[in-house]
Amino acid sequence: MAVRALVFDVFGTLVDWRSGVAGAFRASGIAGDPEELADAWRARYRPILAEVNDGARPWGNLDEIQLVTLDEFLGERGVRITAAERARLVAAWHRLEPWPDVRTGLEALRRRRVVATLSNAHVALLVDLARHGDLRFDCVLSAELAHAYKPARAAYQTAAGLLGLEPAEVMLVAAHPSDLEGARNAGLRTAFVDRPLEYGPDSPAREDPSADESVRDLHELAERLAT
Amino acid sequence: MAVRALVFDVFGTLVDWRSGVAGAFRASGIAGDPEELADAWRARYRPILAEVNDGARPWGNLDEIQLVTLDEFLGERGVRITAAERARLVAAWHRLEPWPDVRTGLEALRRRRVVATLSNAHVALLVDLARHGDLRFDCVLSAELAHAYKPARAAYQTAAGLLGLEPAEVMLVAAHPSDLEGARNAGLRTAFVDRPLEYGPDSPAREDPSADESVRDLHELAERLAT
Repeated sequence: MAVRALVFDVFGTLVDWRSGVAGAFRASGIAGDPEELADAWRARYRPILAEVNDGARPWGNLDEIQLVTLDEFLGERGVRITAAERARLVAAWHRLEPWPDVRTGLEALRRRRVVATLSNAHVALLVDLARHGDLRFDCVLSAELAHAYKPARAAYQTAAGLLGLEPAEVMLVAAHPSDLEGARNAGLRTAFVDRPLEYGPDSPAREDPSADESVRDLHELAERLAT
Repeated sequence: MAVRALVFDVFGTLVDWRSGVAGAFRASGIAGDPEELADAWRARYRPILAEVNDGARPWGNLDEIQLVTLDEFLGERGVRITAAERARLVAAWHRLEPWPDVRTGLEALRRRRVVATLSNAHVALLVDLARHGDLRFDCVLSAELAHAYKPARAAYQTAAGLLGLEPAEVMLVAAHPSDLEGARNAGLRTAFVDRPLEYGPDSPAREDPSADESVRDLHELAERLAT
C-alpha cells in the first residue's frame, strides 16, 4: 500500500521546544538553570498524558495540562509565580522555532503527498506554531480531535480516518521511538527523524530499528520517498 | 471584540462547484444539459443535510451524502450508471476550481488573521480542494468535526472552540445568506461575499443586509479588515 499522507509529530520533531521554553524561563527571572527547568517541566508531560488516556484525569487540552504540570513542579521546588507569569510560560509553547530543515522540507514533501501535523498539542496551539514558523501543512490534525493522546491507538486512527485513508497509507514522522511504536500499533507506517539536539548537546542517542525509514532530516526523507 | 480568525464556506464561496460538476456530467455522457444536471444534484444538498441535523438520517460524510442524492435524482429520471461513473461524479467535488481572487485573497487575509475553512465538506475533501487549487489555510475545519452540518449552531461553535476563540472573535465568510444567518445565531461575525456566477450567468442576485461586511471578493475584504 502506497504512503499517501505524512503526519508529523511536532514538539521535538519539527520544533525546538527546549530552547524556546528555556528562553521563557530565562525571561521569567525564576532562579535556576533555564534548560534544566525546561527539561523538568517536559519530564512531566508523558506521565500526565498517560493519566488522561487511562481515564484517571479528565480530558484537557495541552495548555490546561501544561499549567497543571507547571504548578506541580514549581510548587515542589517552592517557587511561587503570578498568574500572568504562568500564562506566559504556557504560551511559550505556542511560538517555538522550527529546526532549520523543516520549512523547506515540508514544502518538498508536500509536492507528492498530503502533509499534516499529528501532535498531542491542540489545534489552536498548532495553528500558532505553524504561523510562527511559516510552516505549511495541508491539514492540522491533533490528538484533540480524538480526545485521546498519543500513543493511544485512537489518536493515530482518527487522523487516518479524517484524511480518508487506511492507516497503512499514512506514515508518522517522529523523533520519538515511543510515538513511532504507537503508530505501528495503530497500523501506520513510520519514519524516524533524528533530532540529536532535542535535549541539548548532551541528548541521548536515539534510533528506531523498526521504523520503515530512518533519516537525518526532512530533506533526506523527501529523497527517500521520491524513489 | 476583534476578529482574530476568518472561516470560509467553500462550495460557491471559494470554489466554482457548478462548472466543475457540470464538466463531470459532460464527461460522463449522461444525456441532458450538464449545468441543469449539476443544479438538480445541488438542489438536493440542503434538504438531505437538514435530515442529518434533524436526526432523521445517520451521520455520513459528504461523499456518502452526495452518493445518496445522486442516486435519488438520477433514479427519478430513469438514468442508470455504473458504480465507477457514480464514483467519478462524487469525486468531481474534490477538484473544483477556485474563483480567480481566492488564492491571492486568502494570502492577503492570512497576514493579519488566522484563515480556515468551515465547510460542510469533510476534512479529506477539503484537503483535496486546497491542494488542487493551491489554497493555503492555517487550518482545515469542517462540520465533520462537530458531526453537525451548517447551519446547525454546533458546526460554528466547534470551529471557534478548536481555534481557541470566542465565537465573536471569528468571522464566517460566505456567499450564502442562510449560512451567514446560522453563523450569527452561533455568535460569529459575518462577511457576505458576492458570487454572482455561482449558479451561472442567470444566478439570482443575493445580498445580506445583516452581515458585518459585504464585499465583491476577498481582496476587498482584506482592504476592509485592514483598517
